[in-house]
Amino acid sequence: MKSKSIFYIIYNIMKNNFKNKFYNEISVKLKNDLYKINIGYMLLKNNIINFKIKKKNNLLIITNKIILNLYKDYINNFIKKKNIKYKIFIIKDGESYKNIKTVNKIINYLLSNNYDKNTILISLGGGVIGDITGFTASIYHRGIKFIQIPTTLLSQVDASIGGKTGVNHKIGKNMIGTFYQPIIILTDIFFLKTLSKKELKSGLVEVIKYGIIFDKKFFNWIEDNINDLININKKKILYCVNRCCEIKSFFIKNDEKENNIRSLLNLGHTYGHAIESYTKYKNWSHGESVASGIIMSCFTSEQLNIFKKKYTKRIIKLFKLLDLNIKGPDNMNATDYIKYMKIDKKATLNKINLIIPIRIGKAIIMNNVSENIIIKSINKAKKL
Amino acid sequence: MKSKSIFYIIYNIMKNNFKNKFYNEISVKLKNDLYKINIGYMLLKNNIINFKIKKKNNLLIITNKIILNLYKDYINNFIKKKNIKYKIFIIKDGESYKNIKTVNKIINYLLSNNYDKNTILISLGGGVIGDITGFTASIYHRGIKFIQIPTTLLSQVDASIGGKTGVNHKIGKNMIGTFYQPIIILTDIFFLKTLSKKELKSGLVEVIKYGIIFDKKFFNWIEDNINDLININKKKILYCVNRCCEIKSFFIKNDEKENNIRSLLNLGHTYGHAIESYTKYKNWSHGESVASGIIMSCFTSEQLNIFKKKYTKRIIKLFKLLDLNIKGPDNMNATDYIKYMKIDKKATLNKINLIIPIRIGKAIIMNNVSENIIIKSINKAKKL
Repeated sequence: MKSKSIFYIIYNIMKNNFKNKFYNEISVKLKNDLYKINIGYMLLKNNIINFKIKKKNNLLIITNKIILNLYKDYINNFIKKKNIKYKIFIIKDGESYKNIKTVNKIINYLLSNNYDKNTILISLGGGVIGDITGFTASIYHRGIKFIQIPTTLLSQVDASIGGKTGVNHKIGKNMIGTFYQPIIILTDIFFLKTLSKKELKSGLVEVIKYGIIFDKKFFNWIEDNINDLININKKKILYCVNRCCEIKSFFIKNDEKENNIRSLLNLGHTYGHAIESYTKYKNWSHGESVASGIIMSCFTSEQLNIFKKKYTKRIIKLFKLLDLNIKGPDNMNATDYIKYMKIDKKATLNKINLIIPIRIGKAIIMNNVSENIIIKSINKAKKL
Repeated sequence: MKSKSIFYIIYNIMKNNFKNKFYNEISVKLKNDLYKINIGYMLLKNNIINFKIKKKNNLLIITNKIILNLYKDYINNFIKKKNIKYKIFIIKDGESYKNIKTVNKIINYLLSNNYDKNTILISLGGGVIGDITGFTASIYHRGIKFIQIPTTLLSQVDASIGGKTGVNHKIGKNMIGTFYQPIIILTDIFFLKTLSKKELKSGLVEVIKYGIIFDKKFFNWIEDNINDLININKKKILYCVNRCCEIKSFFIKNDEKENNIRSLLNLGHTYGHAIESYTKYKNWSHGESVASGIIMSCFTSEQLNIFKKKYTKRIIKLFKLLDLNIKGPDNMNATDYIKYMKIDKKATLNKINLIIPIRIGKAIIMNNVSENIIIKSINKAKKL
């Protein structure tokens, strides 16, 4: 991470500017793509976003019933200003519908209604809707454009950025998917006001993750401001979302296809995905699963004599403030974890590769972690 | 096509070298990918191909029963020399199985047997197997490597090159897919000896297409050598396959994502895909459908006072030497064609865009062709 220091200088200049306004733009420049993350409060209402849609572009918004009921007028006003027609396609809510069947339904609708290759799909929702919409866009007519409008904290700080699309398979999470970038991301924290506390806390897990893997100062800031974040203090949450988007786009820019440092973003996710797969994407939210996974990763690092216990304690304290269960499912034992962890996308030749923290603000990839240590880490978390 | 002249000079040098040997390599250099088409006779037996597979790479060959029975030993000897393990996954033969269900079956197998992201899929077969394998590779673990070993003339001269992958939908052909390049293409004309005459002729339709859209001299050569090609004269067919691969890779290099000149390769395909969709990918082969389509495109161009009748006659004569039905299905009328042509991938805003020849050796994209002219072209072909 050679450019970290430069990144910090730029960031500090920008941070000061950002504190006085409610809007920011982050450019994500990749090998073949360049797009912007627009971050703000009432972003869609103020119509300050600088992008154009042509008349030939048929728009289809993919969303779910709950979001539509809450934000129909808000969205309608936004798109009306652009003077273009659009239709809405409703999909069912929840990770258990993030599968190839839902993708087929959207494609059937698109084909039956003559949507051509100039169609633009708009994802209006959380990570599930974003992943499904992005994947559909990537395979329809060998690739059409799509826009991300993330409505949950989790998708605003994480899932909407970086072009990972995909659906789950009963054997494993996100096993079917593509790398496919949106043409723009519209991150409007106005949506967060209707988010359930459970979902908000799920998003805060990923926020904390950024602190652990990359930014000690940000981790300290989260500790100092956790209550404001839980209560969606407008200024604080905007600062927080913006910082997460910066960190995530830094990783994406340097390693789009996750051959190297991007995989650090998966801290806690190998354990976490095992929980989600085992519980069939029901009951256990992504955030809660990852929180358990992060703690297990801390224990793994502790056992390798790398991570200090005092750091783990600070992380546990934060997660407890969020009322998260960090012990994993009661009925899931270590062998259940191992089974799913071996088919994780990061696994090679049946060996488990893990992201582990080495201190607050830095993590590494640890290849071929012994099963014995993994089992011990899981059991240690179970006893919390 | 600015670089055509340079291309011709290089080609002429190469052509002379090529005539004296049974092996050639064509580099396909794209924005993000570089791979080689290796062309030869008994290419796999002679083991002259310069590529390595690492131990961590799990190999899975996707093929069908017929090919496997014919070439099991041939393939086994080839891979043995590379000293790596492999397994074979059998899929059913034919365009009607080129759908998302077959992709799901392969993915289920991969996941159930712990195939990780270092897996390499090998497509051993014709265009259908190549398209399915490439698409599966592009979406499994967000993209794994794959190798093309095309076994039909059609796939050797066309489908295996250029990274178009995909499956059909009941509403239209290749509606679901990606652009995803193989890491190498092994084009061994040894496979052609067991090809049925029907399949061989289907491939020759695409060969003739290259002559019409790009290379007058090659078209003349085909006219002079059509009987040798039908009888799979080793030297002639090798020259022919090589020339087609050169032409196709020229188009791919200049327009990978088909925003422009690559679409010229679709001469006859808009009409042709309508036939295939209407007949549900049964009875009418791709080649025969495209042959009818090419004739209809010639008639379209004639009616626009562009293409000369004498050219159409020469093309019809060639197709008749191949015993092809160039009238389209008897029970399919012009309105049936229009319906499917409007949902073709090249269609925009419900308007039909066509590739039409302007003389032997050159074709253009004609946007928004009137339905009236299209209907007349179809009916003229029906009367042949």
